[in-house]
Amino acid sequence: MNLIETLHWRYATKRMNGTIVAAEKVNTILEAIRLAPTSMGVQPFHCFVISSKEMLTAISQEACKQAQITEGSHLVVFAAWKNFTLAHVEEYINRILTTRNVAAESLEGFKSAMTGMTARPAEVNYQWAARQAYIALGIGLVAAAQEQVDATPMEGFNPAAMDKVLGLEEMGLTSVCLMMLGHRDATTDYLVHAKKVRQSEEQLFTII
Amino acid sequence: MNLIETLHWRYATKRMNGTIVAAEKVNTILEAIRLAPTSMGVQPFHCFVISSKEMLTAISQEACKQAQITEGSHLVVFAAWKNFTLAHVEEYINRILTTRNVAAESLEGFKSAMTGMTARPAEVNYQWAARQAYIALGIGLVAAAQEQVDATPMEGFNPAAMDKVLGLEEMGLTSVCLMMLGHRDATTDYLVHAKKVRQSEEQLFTII
Repeated sequence: MNLIETLHWRYATKRMNGTIVAAEKVNTILEAIRLAPTSMGVQPFHCFVISSKEMLTAISQEACKQAQITEGSHLVVFAAWKNFTLAHVEEYINRILTTRNVAAESLEGFKSAMTGMTARPAEVNYQWAARQAYIALGIGLVAAAQEQVDATPMEGFNPAAMDKVLGLEEMGLTSVCLMMLGHRDATTDYLVHAKKVRQSEEQLFTII
Repeated sequence: MNLIETLHWRYATKRMNGTIVAAEKVNTILEAIRLAPTSMGVQPFHCFVISSKEMLTAISQEACKQAQITEGSHLVVFAAWKNFTLAHVEEYINRILTTRNVAAESLEGFKSAMTGMTARPAEVNYQWAARQAYIALGIGLVAAAQEQVDATPMEGFNPAAMDKVLGLEEMGLTSVCLMMLGHRDATTDYLVHAKKVRQSEEQLFTII
C-alpha cells in the first residue's frame, strides 16, 4: 500500500480484539516517533508506552472507559514539557555537540535563540511543546498504519487524573494526547466500514 | 525506502535549489494532509498552498527571510480556526450525513459533545485547533519525504504579519506553522550531511 492507501486503511478504531501487537511493530512505531521532527529539534515531550493490563485498566477509568484501552495492546501517552528551561537547552546543546562533533562556538547563535524562548511565559512554552507532540502523534499514526497496526488517537481523557496516575507532576510533564495500538475487532466496531468524512480539496485548500 | 529510512532521509532543509516540485507529488502531499486524522474528524484548519513567486517573496519578509521560502517551490501555510463555533458543528454534521447517509438521530450524542466544545473559551478552542494542524503537518512531512520532496517545517515567522499578508483575520483563521516544499541544494545547505540529533530511546520513552 502506498501512503494514500494506508491513510484510507486506517481509522480511529473504537473496538479492538485483544490481540497483542508484535514487539517488532511496536518498536518501528516508536522509532518513527523518535525520529519525528520538532521545533529546533528539541523534542519537548516524553512518551509513556504502557502494556501493563493493570495500568491500562487504571488509565481507562480516566479516559471515559473507552473500550479500546482495555481491548488494545499498547498505549502511548504523549506528555508535553510544562515549560522550556535553561537546563533543557544545555542538555540539548550537549546532545548536538556529542552527536555532530562540532565546535561549541558554532552553536552560539542557536543556543541564544533557544535561551530567548525559555524566557517566554510557561504557558506559551507548554502550548509550543504540546504542538510538537502532535507532529510525533501524526507520524506515529502513519507508522502504525504502515505496519498494519490499528491506532486510535485520543484526547477524551482527564489530563489531571492521567498525570496523577503516571506521576507526571514531579517530572514537569502533562499528558496531551494518547495513541492506543492494537488490532481492530471487525465484528463489534461500528466504524470499521464507515466511509471516511473529510473536507473536499476545495474546502480545505486555497491555491495561490 | 521504508518509513524509518524515509525519516532518516528527510531533514529540515535550509537551502533549496529553485526547481519546481512536480504537480503530481504536490497533489499526493496535499491528499495526505487532507486525509490526516483530527480530533473528532473536525479538521479545524485551512491550508494555503502558495507557489506565486510574488507572494512567496512577500511572505519571506515576514519569516526572517529564510532562504528556502524563495528558493523552494510550494509553501503550505497551516492556518488554525480561531474558534470552534456552532456553524462549524452544523457544517460538519451535514458533511457526515451526506457522506455516510446515516440518520441524523444517530449523530445526536456526537453533535451534543461537539456543541459542548464550542462553549469553551475561544483560546482553548484555538489551541486545540492548532494542535490538529500539527498532526497534518507531521503527516505532510512524511508524505513529502516518501515522494522524495524536501520539506522544511517552520515556526520562525511573524503570525500577525503573515495573517495580514493572507487576509486571514476576516476568515477567522490564524497562521500556526509553515511547510516549504522544494528540493535540497546539496552544495549550499550546511545541514545536508549533518547527523540527525535525537533523544535516545531510553531518554524519550518510559516503558510500563
